[in-house]
Amino acid sequence: MFSERLENLRKNTPLVHNITNYVTVNDCANILLACGASPIMADDSEEVEDITSICSALNINIGTLNKNTIPSMFLAGKKANELHHPIILDPVGAGASKLRTETAQKLIDEIKFTVIRGNISEIKTLARGNGTTKGVDADVADKVTEENLDSVIKFTKEFAKKTGAIIAITGVIDIVADDKKAYVLRNGNTMMGKITGSGCMLTAMTAAYIAANQDNSLEAVAASICAMGVCGERAFDKIQKKHGGNSTYRNYIIDEIYNLDGKTLEECARYEIR
Amino acid sequence: MFSERLENLRKNTPLVHNITNYVTVNDCANILLACGASPIMADDSEEVEDITSICSALNINIGTLNKNTIPSMFLAGKKANELHHPIILDPVGAGASKLRTETAQKLIDEIKFTVIRGNISEIKTLARGNGTTKGVDADVADKVTEENLDSVIKFTKEFAKKTGAIIAITGVIDIVADDKKAYVLRNGNTMMGKITGSGCMLTAMTAAYIAANQDNSLEAVAASICAMGVCGERAFDKIQKKHGGNSTYRNYIIDEIYNLDGKTLEECARYEIR
Amino acid sequence: MFSERLENLRKNTPLVHNITNYVTVNDCANILLACGASPIMADDSEEVEDITSICSALNINIGTLNKNTIPSMFLAGKKANELHHPIILDPVGAGASKLRTETAQKLIDEIKFTVIRGNISEIKTLARGNGTTKGVDADVADKVTEENLDSVIKFTKEFAKKTGAIIAITGVIDIVADDKKAYVLRNGNTMMGKITGSGCMLTAMTAAYIAANQDNSLEAVAASICAMGVCGERAFDKIQKKHGGNSTYRNYIIDEIYNLDGKTLEECARYEIR
Repeated sequence: MFSERLENLRKNTPLVHNITNYVTVNDCANILLACGASPIMADDSEEVEDITSICSALNINIGTLNKNTIPSMFLAGKKANELHHPIILDPVGAGASKLRTETAQKLIDEIKFTVIRGNISEIKTLARGNGTTKGVDADVADKVTEENLDSVIKFTKEFAKKTGAIIAITGVIDIVADDKKAYVLRNGNTMMGKITGSGCMLTAMTAAYIAANQDNSLEAVAASICAMGVCGERAFDKIQKKHGGNSTYRNYIIDEIYNLDGKTLEECARYEIR
Repeated sequence: MFSERLENLRKNTPLVHNITNYVTVNDCANILLACGASPIMADDSEEVEDITSICSALNINIGTLNKNTIPSMFLAGKKANELHHPIILDPVGAGASKLRTETAQKLIDEIKFTVIRGNISEIKTLARGNGTTKGVDADVADKVTEENLDSVIKFTKEFAKKTGAIIAITGVIDIVADDKKAYVLRNGNTMMGKITGSGCMLTAMTAAYIAANQDNSLEAVAASICAMGVCGERAFDKIQKKHGGNSTYRNYIIDEIYNLDGKTLEECARYEIR
Repeated sequence: MFSERLENLRKNTPLVHNITNYVTVNDCANILLACGASPIMADDSEEVEDITSICSALNINIGTLNKNTIPSMFLAGKKANELHHPIILDPVGAGASKLRTETAQKLIDEIKFTVIRGNISEIKTLARGNGTTKGVDADVADKVTEENLDSVIKFTKEFAKKTGAIIAITGVIDIVADDKKAYVLRNGNTMMGKITGSGCMLTAMTAAYIAANQDNSLEAVAASICAMGVCGERAFDKIQKKHGGNSTYRNYIIDEIYNLDGKTLEECARYEIR
């Protein structure tokens, strides 16, 4: 039950350590507070091990990676592994530069991730060692459709098996899978692609869901993605009535996450298990 | 009179130099503009002395401190001391990592601060040399209540005496004190804890209040904290009517600061002097 | 026709590389999405050449320049020149510190910019090698008025001739000129000075306009500035009805950019060619 995943999160108020980009960091902090968690951002190599030690989960996002923060990602990741904390990776823009592709690859090689969440182009880049990411957005040629869904599910399960991580591919259709089981989720609104950080916010929130639901990580990831999609729909309804644009839309999505309860999440969820 | 402190600020439009974290920096800039000041953010060691020299106050916030910005904090702080500019410290997360605790301690040792503002756990960490900060939030065990208020006031005055700074401890009950006199303030709303940066914004705004009221710093700090609390209440009323969440709440708090006048501040203020 | 410039932008959805400050970066990303472009932020020297190579334009903003990002600005700028990508410079705070003035000067010396956009004090600093910028705002003494307009237009054309770039000076009256032709634009609202990032957002959006209109850069820059002014007016109307402040104003400006169409832009535009 997705509602139980949300309720556990609200009950546990996990502290989440984020090493993330400076573009969407404020939205990530606010969505973590909105969903019931508590954020801390810290990326200096001198303190990331201390900080991750007092937290319940680690979120690594390579959106504006640089020579100072990359070593911090490895230090924090290894410490979190040592402490058996759940860790999530958002390989933002993997495929768009050698530095991003190689750093993401090396992170996966040296750190055991609980979840890897990206768009289809980023995940394909990681699985195949190269890619055609269009900046930080998925390439149109990679798009998940009803026609190629079966093969994408197969690919996702295989990559989950290879990495030992839950793989979450988000877009118009979202897929969350471990090596055996896949959730196919169909909530959301295409306007979510018109705000910066919808992916980053989702990854940060998912860190909180897995922190609070360690006995059922796969369902927790699916619940988080579903929550984001449902709130994207509800915020879109509000925005339409007011002729709002993407900035207000971003605020309303966070507001909806703040106000979301388990009952609404269950009622609005549209997904199947494959 | 708090209203006079606000009116001086609006009249003087002080330029405030901020060395602050990248999580809440945009909100800090906007609240400085909202209250009547002008912000400049600069943290490279090559320019912080130049920048602080053209400003009227310096705000040092250690929220995402790192090996590049820490030396800049010392350079700017010493230059601001030399020029007799008011300086405020926000020891974000002191107690959460050795780096934060030690940097905050060293800053207090080497720079003369006009004001130090933090939550109770952060201030206790600085006073005692160690702490139990829960990430960037105060530990529940440290909470200021009506029961322990007398002893917290005593502690605050003592720490003010030791440091020579005005000490501001904010939470459900706020305390602002120098070594002789304490303001106990009771405005605000608990939902302010559900947005990132309510503390950072308050510190930035307080820098502006002390810049514009150098002959009465203690009352200026109290006025700034009162303004934040009053606007937190007024924004909460608006948010309730619209079923908003924490993202809109953040925007409305800044909006209320923008629209606040001295008369409203006086009428809504709830405080006592001890 | 300004409408054609906007429609080209919406059709082409250019990917824009931004090396920008951490204060307003989120707003820059959202306004790029709002106007029809796609943003990517990347500032590590290891990847800026890769990133700029897959983009259609480069935006360099020195708002929080530092020893890591300055070399990246030069690397990206030279690569973009090599690839004949349009490049825009926002010399934020040039005149406020030696580091800013000298870096901006060196950027202009070593990189060929398509556009340089700043306030009057920043542009004067670059043209004269020194200045009196008040932090990141223009000095009152420099203000462009109906009285000094002729001489400012002459100065702008001369600086355009000297640099080979289109020069855009924004304020209450905006001037956009190459060495022969100047647009004088009169849209906007003074409240735009009360939000952080109105200049940064405009520069980022202008990068998108010039990326999508490479055969008519001068008109593209004028169209972008006009769009910002028109949306500043429309957002101001909405804010007035709701007694909003500067935070909501910022959101509404981005919303208006999101919803702006060519017809509205043409109808609301107020400008002359000199």
